[in-house]
Amino acid sequence: MRIRLDVAYDGAGFHGWAAQPGLRTVEGELSLAAATVLRVPEVSLTCAGRTDSGVHARGQVVHTDLDALPEGTQRLARRLNGVLAPDLRILRAQEAPEGFDARFSALWRRYAYRVADRPELVDPLRRGHVLAWPRPLDEVAMDVASLGLVGQHDFASFCKQREGATTIRTLLDLHWEREADGLLVAHVRADAFCHSMVRALVGALLAVGEGRRPASWAAEVLAAAHRDPSVAVAPAHGLTLEEVGYPVDAELGARVEITRARRA
Amino acid sequence: MRIRLDVAYDGAGFHGWAAQPGLRTVEGELSLAAATVLRVPEVSLTCAGRTDSGVHARGQVVHTDLDALPEGTQRLARRLNGVLAPDLRILRAQEAPEGFDARFSALWRRYAYRVADRPELVDPLRRGHVLAWPRPLDEVAMDVASLGLVGQHDFASFCKQREGATTIRTLLDLHWEREADGLLVAHVRADAFCHSMVRALVGALLAVGEGRRPASWAAEVLAAAHRDPSVAVAPAHGLTLEEVGYPVDAELGARVEITRARRA
Repeated sequence: MRIRLDVAYDGAGFHGWAAQPGLRTVEGELSLAAATVLRVPEVSLTCAGRTDSGVHARGQVVHTDLDALPEGTQRLARRLNGVLAPDLRILRAQEAPEGFDARFSALWRRYAYRVADRPELVDPLRRGHVLAWPRPLDEVAMDVASLGLVGQHDFASFCKQREGATTIRTLLDLHWEREADGLLVAHVRADAFCHSMVRALVGALLAVGEGRRPASWAAEVLAAAHRDPSVAVAPAHGLTLEEVGYPVDAELGARVEITRARRA
Repeated sequence: MRIRLDVAYDGAGFHGWAAQPGLRTVEGELSLAAATVLRVPEVSLTCAGRTDSGVHARGQVVHTDLDALPEGTQRLARRLNGVLAPDLRILRAQEAPEGFDARFSALWRRYAYRVADRPELVDPLRRGHVLAWPRPLDEVAMDVASLGLVGQHDFASFCKQREGATTIRTLLDLHWEREADGLLVAHVRADAFCHSMVRALVGALLAVGEGRRPASWAAEVLAAAHRDPSVAVAPAHGLTLEEVGYPVDAELGARVEITRARRA
């Protein structure tokens, strides 16, 4: 049986999602906790978004395959939370519907990047997940620049290059919102992201917001289609994986086929 | 000249507001930073709410008297923030109007107490300032119980007794709100609070919310007018001083006289 786990973490204490020997990672901690609770030697996990070191999650989705779960999913969540440190929480555990794959049946991933661009917005209680920016940002210019990035493009300019991997992605949404309390938040949603892509997009848009670059610059960088060293990758701690979208149950299996074909 | 500072801090790293030898406190850190920046041997501070160890603030108000401030208040705030650790921030510095006293001209203090009473509400990014409660709470019962506490009363039942000090306070507002994301928040506003009063009120209401006590119990505890050991003081980390209210400038001086007379 396949179990879906909805997971949240404070990225500050983790070297990202992916297990690495000798480093504290979300995958490492979670699979160790699951092995402890289930009394098995090893538990293999698949996640929707392989977050980088320092990146947070409120809506990470993970699946794992178990032979049996005699005690039910609610009790599993409770027992996992009992074993895990407070910076990593299981929000929900449930039996996954037929055809569900945390990674391959996902339709999109949604991230938020939070910025406090005035001294009076810097909240010590949120300093772990909000970037403090020393100068005011022009969110209208940032929004204009963002519009030029939405759609299906080769995002090579905003990706760490990896041998042979495609950098074509569909950016479904990218816009900035000034929240009621003044915080500036980028909402970023795509079918998938390549490595450090959200932070590179945000880094380029911060340059626009400061007035160091015109709003048209972001689209120019995109059009160049090769990694641009003048784009600063924004710090990890402002970024949170908020939500992963899946199709209705009946279409989960078909979605897996489509994603696999596209990646191949 | 008198300077008003609006201050925010993450209470986790502080032994409360009040300076204590050998302990890291907000007053201690802030007066040391001010002395450094202003190149004076000592800076004396007065705050609106003397928060306990572990209690946070987003809207603490502080005043200090300076002989002169050649460089302006904006630059003072920037320089203080440059010296202070990131868990303590100056949101604003400004010259105080005639008659202003951070403590004695305040009309009211407003606190919020945040509780996540379902596993899916426990957000690791907010674990420092939200209490994780293991069972669901009935916010309607808590709101009913809260109503019985509002008004001018002797709050001795919810105060740490101090020799000779009055425990009569006016509780202007106490209500619970289920926020859009499901978090349960108590909004508590009074002319002033005695030591650990908000946390004792919240502790009593949590017992009601769990169904361990009827809604009428809170008012019974109040009416007894002596510290009740069956009231558990809620943990400090859920509590945040959100805002301090002051009258219009023309009435600041008169308010100081009223407050001093009441305390005497």
